[in-house]
Amino acid sequence: MSIETQVDEASRVEIFDTTLRDGEQSPGISLNTQEKVEIATQLARLGVDVIEAGFPITSPGDFEAVEAIARTVSGPVVCGLARTQKADIEAVWGAVKDAERPRIHTFISTSDIHIAHQLQTDRADVKGQARAAVAHARELCADVEFSPMDATRADVEFTAEVCAIAVAEGAGVINVPDTVGYTTPEEFTAYLERLYALVPELRSVRLSVHCHDDLGLAVANSFAGVLAGARQVECAINGIGERAGNCSLEEIVMLLRTRRSDHGLDTTVETTELARTSRMVSRFTGYAVQFNKAIVGRNAFAHESGIHQDGVLKERTTYEIMDARDVGLESNSIVLGKHSGRHALKDALHELGFRVEGNALNQAFKAFKALADKKKQVTALDLEAIVSDEMRESEGRYELAWFEVEAGSRRSPLARVGVTTPAGVEATGESGGDGPVDAVFGAIQAAAATECELNQYTVSAVTEGGDALGEVTVMLRAHGRLASGQGVSTDIIEASARAYVRALSNALDGAAVREAESVAADAASSPVPPGP
Amino acid sequence: MSIETQVDEASRVEIFDTTLRDGEQSPGISLNTQEKVEIATQLARLGVDVIEAGFPITSPGDFEAVEAIARTVSGPVVCGLARTQKADIEAVWGAVKDAERPRIHTFISTSDIHIAHQLQTDRADVKGQARAAVAHARELCADVEFSPMDATRADVEFTAEVCAIAVAEGAGVINVPDTVGYTTPEEFTAYLERLYALVPELRSVRLSVHCHDDLGLAVANSFAGVLAGARQVECAINGIGERAGNCSLEEIVMLLRTRRSDHGLDTTVETTELARTSRMVSRFTGYAVQFNKAIVGRNAFAHESGIHQDGVLKERTTYEIMDARDVGLESNSIVLGKHSGRHALKDALHELGFRVEGNALNQAFKAFKALADKKKQVTALDLEAIVSDEMRESEGRYELAWFEVEAGSRRSPLARVGVTTPAGVEATGESGGDGPVDAVFGAIQAAAATECELNQYTVSAVTEGGDALGEVTVMLRAHGRLASGQGVSTDIIEASARAYVRALSNALDGAAVREAESVAADAASSPVPPGP
Repeated sequence: MSIETQVDEASRVEIFDTTLRDGEQSPGISLNTQEKVEIATQLARLGVDVIEAGFPITSPGDFEAVEAIARTVSGPVVCGLARTQKADIEAVWGAVKDAERPRIHTFISTSDIHIAHQLQTDRADVKGQARAAVAHARELCADVEFSPMDATRADVEFTAEVCAIAVAEGAGVINVPDTVGYTTPEEFTAYLERLYALVPELRSVRLSVHCHDDLGLAVANSFAGVLAGARQVECAINGIGERAGNCSLEEIVMLLRTRRSDHGLDTTVETTELARTSRMVSRFTGYAVQFNKAIVGRNAFAHESGIHQDGVLKERTTYEIMDARDVGLESNSIVLGKHSGRHALKDALHELGFRVEGNALNQAFKAFKALADKKKQVTALDLEAIVSDEMRESEGRYELAWFEVEAGSRRSPLARVGVTTPAGVEATGESGGDGPVDAVFGAIQAAAATECELNQYTVSAVTEGGDALGEVTVMLRAHGRLASGQGVSTDIIEASARAYVRALSNALDGAAVREAESVAADAASSPVPPGP
Repeated sequence: MSIETQVDEASRVEIFDTTLRDGEQSPGISLNTQEKVEIATQLARLGVDVIEAGFPITSPGDFEAVEAIARTVSGPVVCGLARTQKADIEAVWGAVKDAERPRIHTFISTSDIHIAHQLQTDRADVKGQARAAVAHARELCADVEFSPMDATRADVEFTAEVCAIAVAEGAGVINVPDTVGYTTPEEFTAYLERLYALVPELRSVRLSVHCHDDLGLAVANSFAGVLAGARQVECAINGIGERAGNCSLEEIVMLLRTRRSDHGLDTTVETTELARTSRMVSRFTGYAVQFNKAIVGRNAFAHESGIHQDGVLKERTTYEIMDARDVGLESNSIVLGKHSGRHALKDALHELGFRVEGNALNQAFKAFKALADKKKQVTALDLEAIVSDEMRESEGRYELAWFEVEAGSRRSPLARVGVTTPAGVEATGESGGDGPVDAVFGAIQAAAATECELNQYTVSAVTEGGDALGEVTVMLRAHGRLASGQGVSTDIIEASARAYVRALSNALDGAAVREAESVAADAASSPVPPGP
């Protein structure tokens, strides 16, 4: 069902996905390496051109994840982010060097406000740092990208000088970030035109744009950038990222595709993978997509009023400018039932792109059978949810063994739980609370002998219907570390308990990592900035 | 803390809020009259210029709500939507005539695709209908707005002819809709410039734009419209509306405010009311706002990485282009405790803009005391939630009387509930299920002797912390009608049960209304289109 994606090289816009770098910097997102690899694999299936896999200097965990993606994922360029410091650039190279097509992305601010307040240096030093960083990166890697951070609030002439240095030192991609989401389309167009005029050699490299959505203009500004000559757009699935997030990948891709005949520009993204990628990122990050989100929101293709549906039936284009099948919605054709066997499950999972073998397949089959006992029809969405859920189990962490709860409007709730500790011992806990979920959370804290502060708690249904799987996301703070966990079950209390135990494990893992990092941080010359 | 909002009349952009019309047409939103009046009252407090309160011909409920808003809310223009049919226009006039400043908004498509497939007529007829509709509306009302629906996909010359007719017949506002969210900023600019050239008399009326977000460009297109000369923007709180929704009110308002010194344009919206308005609409509609939504998302002003916070502390403008206080965040100063009395509560509610007296105050005080027993600190967010929750109680509907539930990982769940029927009798029900919430839902269906299909189920926490209020939204289908309900409690099972009972009541109310409407619909000449 894919639309024709042939496009000549001059008209091809490359998609640089930063879900795992800028997106992952959002509060409470704590993806482990396995989850990051799974997302990167799906991004490769989606056909993005570049995956920014992380910011390796910031933590051993980030380094490990970037390295794992570089070694596992084939197709896209795999890139890591670095400040201009030598150690940053070498950390990126260490992590990406085994990729089919590695890239080092280095950045430094060119705006006076950042130079004065964040870098606490001067323009001459910024030029020197940019020159040294690009030169060093080029010694290590043929593919180097440079970003003048906060460019849209910077003096365009100074930014042009810095970009010219980066090009001279061998950067093949110059990325212009609207770091704080401040610019507007006509202003950004003028800025880029001026930059081209000041640095004619920009025509010989790939110009890129990186826009934030603080004023709701990230997609429009990115599109303006493309019309002005940029041939790479930095964006993230579901538009996640610092603050209001980045340009939404699915929106810029479908904008270019839908209006292609007017502008002649397009990407080579396989758009039928958009919906699934969106669901995976939403599930792993715990960041729900609002109903009225363009392209991948629940309502993006829905029509409530009578005539609307009537109009759509009569002639789809009356009210729809895109076909839901082109973004991978309404492709939910896989349906298994309680009599489906291991082979049918394996085939279905394969069709969904999950490589599940051996013990993992046994686990998935067990979960599938348990679900099929409760639900008449197990759909592709259910399979995605349970396989993703199973993937979250790993060694050396807390696990929920069992729970019991009693509650009602005329009594106080009481919960008892059994939790398997990282040492493999079962610990039990008991607690009352404001409600049954609160009581279960209290009992888990008692069993784990840890105090946590609940930060966010959300529940959503995977599919429609009363027998739907519930998907719970818990965000909590333990030992000073904010972390999230997800759980999936037809029983909301069970899903909540599993999500809580996982969030707790993630927080404790994170706290351990952080302790190790604090030594490195003390040694570092300056704290790590958020990036473009 | 409000920013200076003085702006001369030529530079003032009017805000036309369509949350209650286009927004309310989103699937599953079923606001009752009381909720619509409360939202309209808050919109007036926010300082919007026009409230599109509904589409009166579509149902007696819509008519009643528009009429109630027209009679209650002072400040903004109150407007209703009408097709070009005489009956539609008279229904709007009937509903808005008591408003301080009433407006009739009538529309007809000018795109050939709509004329052929939806209207099944020809261009000459469209011109005739537009002429007659505006003329008739002007006989009733001095303030008439006309929209050529699907204008951006229509022949601009034909659209210009129709607009010229509308102006000649006395329309004071011409609104150009991008009904299917297809245009781009530079294209929309060119379209509006051409329209001005073809219809010079447009300079003597107010030009308006109405943009949908299907390709993520609603805010950018609206902004382009304003730069091209439009002085009214149609938008909705949280960007809700058909499909991917409308231009987000908070985004266009903060874009104009933040970039005011560059363009000299601004609205007179009281931006410090944005956050609260967003929460109210989200709560009443059951449409959650995603974390990374611009302006009103949980993360819009958040910074995860160390330096980021460091940067913000050192110099706010390093990474923030807006102040969270200007959109009404971080104004959460009201804190009550268990010893706070009725007077303190009343003062706090008054400060929040709730006019709660007599029995309603007694109810709110009871709910407050119950919450204060469980939570150390009751904040403004909690008060908003419990007062909103109390407002949902009304006569002649199902109500939850009590419930009991037992569940665990080693047993099947069992729930028993008592439900007060519209007749005032207590009915009981018992059920098992896939989990305790499912069991409670089953027991409610048994008690109400009604079958429902659960469509969507979401839970979120009102504030942070383990003792937070949980806010549950249930969307279900009963008797062919999709409806939602919300419930708030520190006990998630109780909140779920209350939300389910309310959704069920809303669905049954809706089904009753629909039955009455089907008679009217049969008599109508054509089904009702969704509007611009």
